[in-house]
Amino acid sequence: MSTAPGQQDLFATEPNKMADAKEPKAAKEKEKPTKSAENAETMAKRQREISVSEFFTKNRHLLGFDSPRKALLTAVKEAVDNSLDACEEARIQPDVKVKIARIGTSEKQFTITVEDNGPGIVATQVGNVFGRLLYGSKFHRLRQSRGQQGIGISAAGMYGLLTTGNPVRVKSKPGKKAQANAFEITIDTAKNRPDVVQKPFDWGEKDHGTEVSIDLEGEYRRGQKSVEEFLKLMAVANPHVYLHYTDPDGNVTEYQRATKELPQEVEEIKPHPHGVELGVLLKMVNESENRTVSAFLQEDFSRVGPTVAKEICEKAGVKPDSNPHRLETSDVAKIKAAIDATKIMAPPLSCIAPIGEELIITGLKKEVEADFYVATSRKPVVYRGHPFAIEVGIAYGKPGDTLVMTDSGKIVEVATKKPDNAEVLMGAADEPVRLIRFANRVPLVFQQSACAISKAVIDTNWKNYGLQQPRGALPIGPMVIFVHFASVWVPFTSEAKEAIASYDEIMEELRLALMDAGRKLGSHVRKGKKLANEFKKRNYIEIYIPHLVVALKDILKLDEKAVTKARDSLTVVLEKSRKL
Amino acid sequence: MSTAPGQQDLFATEPNKMADAKEPKAAKEKEKPTKSAENAETMAKRQREISVSEFFTKNRHLLGFDSPRKALLTAVKEAVDNSLDACEEARIQPDVKVKIARIGTSEKQFTITVEDNGPGIVATQVGNVFGRLLYGSKFHRLRQSRGQQGIGISAAGMYGLLTTGNPVRVKSKPGKKAQANAFEITIDTAKNRPDVVQKPFDWGEKDHGTEVSIDLEGEYRRGQKSVEEFLKLMAVANPHVYLHYTDPDGNVTEYQRATKELPQEVEEIKPHPHGVELGVLLKMVNESENRTVSAFLQEDFSRVGPTVAKEICEKAGVKPDSNPHRLETSDVAKIKAAIDATKIMAPPLSCIAPIGEELIITGLKKEVEADFYVATSRKPVVYRGHPFAIEVGIAYGKPGDTLVMTDSGKIVEVATKKPDNAEVLMGAADEPVRLIRFANRVPLVFQQSACAISKAVIDTNWKNYGLQQPRGALPIGPMVIFVHFASVWVPFTSEAKEAIASYDEIMEELRLALMDAGRKLGSHVRKGKKLANEFKKRNYIEIYIPHLVVALKDILKLDEKAVTKARDSLTVVLEKSRKL
Repeated sequence: MSTAPGQQDLFATEPNKMADAKEPKAAKEKEKPTKSAENAETMAKRQREISVSEFFTKNRHLLGFDSPRKALLTAVKEAVDNSLDACEEARIQPDVKVKIARIGTSEKQFTITVEDNGPGIVATQVGNVFGRLLYGSKFHRLRQSRGQQGIGISAAGMYGLLTTGNPVRVKSKPGKKAQANAFEITIDTAKNRPDVVQKPFDWGEKDHGTEVSIDLEGEYRRGQKSVEEFLKLMAVANPHVYLHYTDPDGNVTEYQRATKELPQEVEEIKPHPHGVELGVLLKMVNESENRTVSAFLQEDFSRVGPTVAKEICEKAGVKPDSNPHRLETSDVAKIKAAIDATKIMAPPLSCIAPIGEELIITGLKKEVEADFYVATSRKPVVYRGHPFAIEVGIAYGKPGDTLVMTDSGKIVEVATKKPDNAEVLMGAADEPVRLIRFANRVPLVFQQSACAISKAVIDTNWKNYGLQQPRGALPIGPMVIFVHFASVWVPFTSEAKEAIASYDEIMEELRLALMDAGRKLGSHVRKGKKLANEFKKRNYIEIYIPHLVVALKDILKLDEKAVTKARDSLTVVLEKSRKL
Repeated sequence: MSTAPGQQDLFATEPNKMADAKEPKAAKEKEKPTKSAENAETMAKRQREISVSEFFTKNRHLLGFDSPRKALLTAVKEAVDNSLDACEEARIQPDVKVKIARIGTSEKQFTITVEDNGPGIVATQVGNVFGRLLYGSKFHRLRQSRGQQGIGISAAGMYGLLTTGNPVRVKSKPGKKAQANAFEITIDTAKNRPDVVQKPFDWGEKDHGTEVSIDLEGEYRRGQKSVEEFLKLMAVANPHVYLHYTDPDGNVTEYQRATKELPQEVEEIKPHPHGVELGVLLKMVNESENRTVSAFLQEDFSRVGPTVAKEICEKAGVKPDSNPHRLETSDVAKIKAAIDATKIMAPPLSCIAPIGEELIITGLKKEVEADFYVATSRKPVVYRGHPFAIEVGIAYGKPGDTLVMTDSGKIVEVATKKPDNAEVLMGAADEPVRLIRFANRVPLVFQQSACAISKAVIDTNWKNYGLQQPRGALPIGPMVIFVHFASVWVPFTSEAKEAIASYDEIMEELRLALMDAGRKLGSHVRKGKKLANEFKKRNYIEIYIPHLVVALKDILKLDEKAVTKARDSLTVVLEKSRKL
């Protein structure tokens, strides 16, 4: 992680020297605390609220803004996530333009701009959406989406403000006939409230959409964990998206749509009884608009019909027609116990939209050059009451690595080449496989070792599928492993949304999905190895045929004709000995 | 991580079966969304604020409440941290009582109670301190303390409420003559505000102090990462504290004070100019009560005297007597640049209180049985403008493991024994060393691999100091490595405060501290090895002396007297050949 220029100039370089410096008398006086020991009153005077913005400003590494390089990518990520969510909710094929530009000639300050063709944002909400932490529409809804916390984009804006002093700039047009507006937004961190300047403008041809621009301190580098790689991965998991990217040097990269089909529309569901904790249940009981416990159970939860409601009430010893608001905590605890002891159908799965095996392979083929692709999409299951689905894709072997048998039966081999540019996802044949992780179609770029997905891949025994694998490490080979976690609620290990927590049910599903994909891969790898051995064997023998023939000639005193015959028959024998 | 009983009963055990279940028509209808595609208006209707309590309720793994076992320890930790901070601020020798009791006969629900002899809390603040996230006195102060976020204890209470439905119970007496009060506190998560029931009571002998009781779902187990271990480690790093612990089975453990001396009192400091970011500087400028830029720089920062202030203003091209509130953003940016380009003395170090080499060794001797102790306490330095100090302690070799030379010059060896009970901190001689991590005197129990301290220990080449060390792993040996990070602001990698972020300056200081302690250790280890070799050599030779003598006797035809002489002289030769 890095620090502001100031500290590098002085502290990082010679911290001890600094610490040794003598304190000037004046300064010393100034630091002296007015009074010594504290008591309850003096302490009380200092106790006050900490705004969530202040908290995350001081802890910005929790949000993924710990280093300038990471900050640049995180800001792009949050903006793109929001654009795609908005487009899909409005059932619009997403066209997203990403642009990174240097501010002046600076190598330290950049403007990132992300423009979409989404539904736009109504003027009154723009300030809250971009200028207020913990504000949004996704947190309280049980359905799959990229964003879920209502922090990301505001945090990016806050970081920009913190490092450049410049406000976030937003353009939005919420519909064909609606007025387009331009906004300048700053966050009042002490209050976690936005200050907004709004003025109408003419967005020309544009029917609807949103554009956000953030000036921030960043570091631009290509290669691993770069914006380029992130967008490439985004394109793999979102083949329905058109991405247009302009880098700071003005180079343009386009990621074309591979399908016109939007992801299946997700439906919001109500909480499942088995996911609910006592405290939450107490809250729901108090806030319920239903007049009877039976109605409360049926209306405020998914999968509870009259029969199940009746069963729960009986087990809990609570009258079905009693008023929820009159229940004692002890009654609610009994209901909770009754729920846990009652068999209830799993939540509806319409709330999540897996990518599907076909599109996973389409996405991989689009961005990863390989000669063999497999995919596995597991049926959705449940953790803590939240539906989720695991999907795995594998791209194996660069064309250059493989043995191809020509019609003439000749086997051709091309030597393995190390990828020449950093944006190539697959490594060389003697390197660890590349693992690419996704949560709700968003690439997870950092914290790989802390992620449940990585743990599951390492725990899988890839030797069963013909790959080398050092102990406790990723397997070796020219291969990309794609893993997608789709859920109504992704249990990230931090607000930066970089890794998934290792819940038991999640680990188990990952295991099964990886094994399934591995089996599909295995047969292919083994076939490849057979070919390779065969290839070696033949070359080996071909070298000796001439010498054999010469020897035979001398021993048997053969004439040229017999020699030719011998050579041919030996070749035939060799052909026959082929296992394939 | 674990899940509530309900899911385990049904989902974890047979998730697929569940997912396969057909949806009943009724339910299906109910799930259907009222309308399909969204637009800006429909989305706007759902956008709303997310309270910080709601956020952390849903993300409680971020706060260390992801599994029942971890939750039990985290709750105890937060309560003890607060007690010790309060006592030390009030300059009171801390006496802390910790009690864990089962609720009824439950193995799943516990009441944790932590009582201190601190200054108490004034009645009007109790609700906020225990029933409101992001509220406290430590966040805005630049001085070392255990707590810093204003989240911990409220989060513990929130988790208790969530899992048992029971409120947090607090007793507090803020001073000898003050009235003691008992409180029942619940958090309104939607508002992040406390609901408090208060009533006065008589606390008998007690002059002042606070007691907090939380009912929560937990799992009690001894051994690694247990409450027992945490308290033991707490005692190591806080030899000035008396701890009294009662476990769920009623067993009492006491950790006695090893020193009557409180940690050196820490003074609050003002921010150092080199730590400040542009956004923060803008905020400070707007909020400053000083009428001139020069005064602003001198009064609102540490280490800025008239000369430095003048230099900064000149470099920035800003008049020293101009009004801060009239500065343009561009002016403030110039001031920031000028600050970074100006050499300014490091912040005063009176704001942190390292433990010190002597007390580190005292603490280790108190709780870790070993035969050699060393400690290194580095001079404080700075990262991002925050002073911090690294301290390392090492306890090496269980007495049972070592070679002792008796007065008669005989070397005695005792075989290594594996520790028989789990609370023994040191492992066996053939196991990795035990690393114990501390931040501001608080043991860090979880997330070891993600912590800067662990990385630094692994990166250190312990072979230089006579220890085995597998590549990329902890060294091997009967040893405990103690590392303490003391700072005004600990950059934790999550709100659960389990690991320290790897800032460059921090890594460098850790490296230097570990090397220094390693060197001190090295000579001892090598001496031990010499002894061991010598021991082997002697045993070896002693076996052969009789045979040699017999041989000599035959060859030289010696009489008994000569034989004895030969034997003695050989023994002498052997003695002489000793290197020690």
